[in-house]
Amino acid sequence: MSEQRTELDNLGEFGLIDHLTKKFESIQKTTEFAIGDDAAVLNINDKESQLISTDMLIEGVHFNLMYMPLKHLGYKAVAVNVSDICAMNGVAEQITVSIAVSNRFPVEALEELYDGIHTACRFYNVDLIGGDTSSSLSGLTISITAIGRAIKEDIAYRSGAQEHDLLVVTGDLGAAYVGLQVLEREKEVYNANPAIQPDLDGHDYIIERQLKPEARVDVIKFLKELDVKPTSMIDISDGLASEVLHICKSSKVGCHVYDEKLPIDTKTSMTAIEFNLDPHTCAMNGGEDYELLFTVSQKDYDKIKGNPHMTVIGHITDEKDGRYYIDKNGSAIELTAQGWTHFND
Amino acid sequence: MSEQRTELDNLGEFGLIDHLTKKFESIQKTTEFAIGDDAAVLNINDKESQLISTDMLIEGVHFNLMYMPLKHLGYKAVAVNVSDICAMNGVAEQITVSIAVSNRFPVEALEELYDGIHTACRFYNVDLIGGDTSSSLSGLTISITAIGRAIKEDIAYRSGAQEHDLLVVTGDLGAAYVGLQVLEREKEVYNANPAIQPDLDGHDYIIERQLKPEARVDVIKFLKELDVKPTSMIDISDGLASEVLHICKSSKVGCHVYDEKLPIDTKTSMTAIEFNLDPHTCAMNGGEDYELLFTVSQKDYDKIKGNPHMTVIGHITDEKDGRYYIDKNGSAIELTAQGWTHFND
Repeated sequence: MSEQRTELDNLGEFGLIDHLTKKFESIQKTTEFAIGDDAAVLNINDKESQLISTDMLIEGVHFNLMYMPLKHLGYKAVAVNVSDICAMNGVAEQITVSIAVSNRFPVEALEELYDGIHTACRFYNVDLIGGDTSSSLSGLTISITAIGRAIKEDIAYRSGAQEHDLLVVTGDLGAAYVGLQVLEREKEVYNANPAIQPDLDGHDYIIERQLKPEARVDVIKFLKELDVKPTSMIDISDGLASEVLHICKSSKVGCHVYDEKLPIDTKTSMTAIEFNLDPHTCAMNGGEDYELLFTVSQKDYDKIKGNPHMTVIGHITDEKDGRYYIDKNGSAIELTAQGWTHFND
Repeated sequence: MSEQRTELDNLGEFGLIDHLTKKFESIQKTTEFAIGDDAAVLNINDKESQLISTDMLIEGVHFNLMYMPLKHLGYKAVAVNVSDICAMNGVAEQITVSIAVSNRFPVEALEELYDGIHTACRFYNVDLIGGDTSSSLSGLTISITAIGRAIKEDIAYRSGAQEHDLLVVTGDLGAAYVGLQVLEREKEVYNANPAIQPDLDGHDYIIERQLKPEARVDVIKFLKELDVKPTSMIDISDGLASEVLHICKSSKVGCHVYDEKLPIDTKTSMTAIEFNLDPHTCAMNGGEDYELLFTVSQKDYDKIKGNPHMTVIGHITDEKDGRYYIDKNGSAIELTAQGWTHFND
């Protein structure tokens, strides 16, 4: 090993992936698209392609078992992987699930986890086709690979957005992040005094958004029924700002996102304010909403107009016009993605 | 969670997987085979099926960075997954690699790891098509999914062995385990006195078998050239005894494995004896050889007879005749697989 030492934080997650994988080239003719989208794309027959996505969830980094019941964790682990397949405009069909656990966990705990995985498999019609179970020195690690399909011409990459396209999000934003704040607060209260019962009253919606997000398989169906093919698509795992920038970077375009257009549920706004947080900041940078962000050609506007699941939040501009967030006063602020979770000791 | 507490060790790895996945049923018509072989099998077109296998490697459980250079670890992680695709009589084409690392690792360490992954991808002609990079609270975890293909009628399952078939292994056995003993001994010596240089002289072969195993992609090619379709196949990751029992259980057959037929390299035998280990026990239970174990119909015997890569070590019997290891004196000893690594605290 060389004597130089570059800290992981210097590169950040996306910089690190780019750096480590830059010298890999695809040589198999079945590889249609490798690294850099929500899923890889493989050629499997003349009509369809296969979509493959993978995710690893680490205790203490991605989830906290103090407020995340194992059953919910199992469900969420499947849902977020199905969401990656949705983000390519495809349908998930199979998953593999590998887990590493310390013997702190009894068999009954893993039964809870697999109950959640089973419920999600039933709900999303995906088959559990394999995996690996091993011991870990500490904590729980879950690694999931989701496998899906799409008609070749339906696949939506991050790179297809074009000038004048409309930027659309599904559902509402920021709730998962604000829900996490409530759970974190109650954890602190509990740590200070275990006799005090958690006060989650009135926060059901935002807590459910954090603990039990759903992949928008319904939206993929609606889009097909409406005969709308998104020109680009991504799912919102790291926050809207980060995902908009991914689309802009991959598509080599600019954008305007309008503050006043962001779909934020009243319960999210009220609780955010309770925590002295700006609801729009939660929507832009909160993450974990697992909604879909996509672009459509203006000619498709009439097909999605007034659809209760979709909100137009801005439009695509030429790359040299920049990427901007337009606030309530009409001021244009350059879009930036918040930093990534730091690498832990 | 229920109040009952059943320890993970009560079930063991395979018992645990069976227990957790027993209520999962496949509903997708593209799922040809789900859990219970070296890889899952998916229908992708009229001629071919896809093979999907996944593995997780945990620092301190599956590898020790004190004697495993990161470059070798990267290479091995790919090789063992390619081996799973070989074990279905298929050809690996793509992999995904997810890693979780603590910030104990500098970027340069991960470059070493990915150098090894890259070298293996080149050697095995597999494309890196995706993955996930995240932080961990401690140590390094690697999760790999391998994707391969096979002509439908070529696929070899564990369940196809029939009475009178011959049991065949490739290469030689036990070397990886004995190599590990040498590395462990030198680690102890180093821990006791870091000034002493490791004494690995004359152990190159067995250490390479531990640190840089190869998937037998060459054997898959030979079998095709020889026009031999194994009736069943598995790769040797946990030790020959365990794998023979997997084939017998899946195929509902018995077997005789002959002690005197086991292919063991002289260097393996000599070093085993140095460690007061029985070389045949190392071959039967050592594991990590990543050779292939398969069965062929007797009519194919002439095609493999004298092949330097293949050794007939026994034959398949009727299930009610039992599963036996025949020692040098002709005594039949019931085959048992050694226990699995215990779940750690």
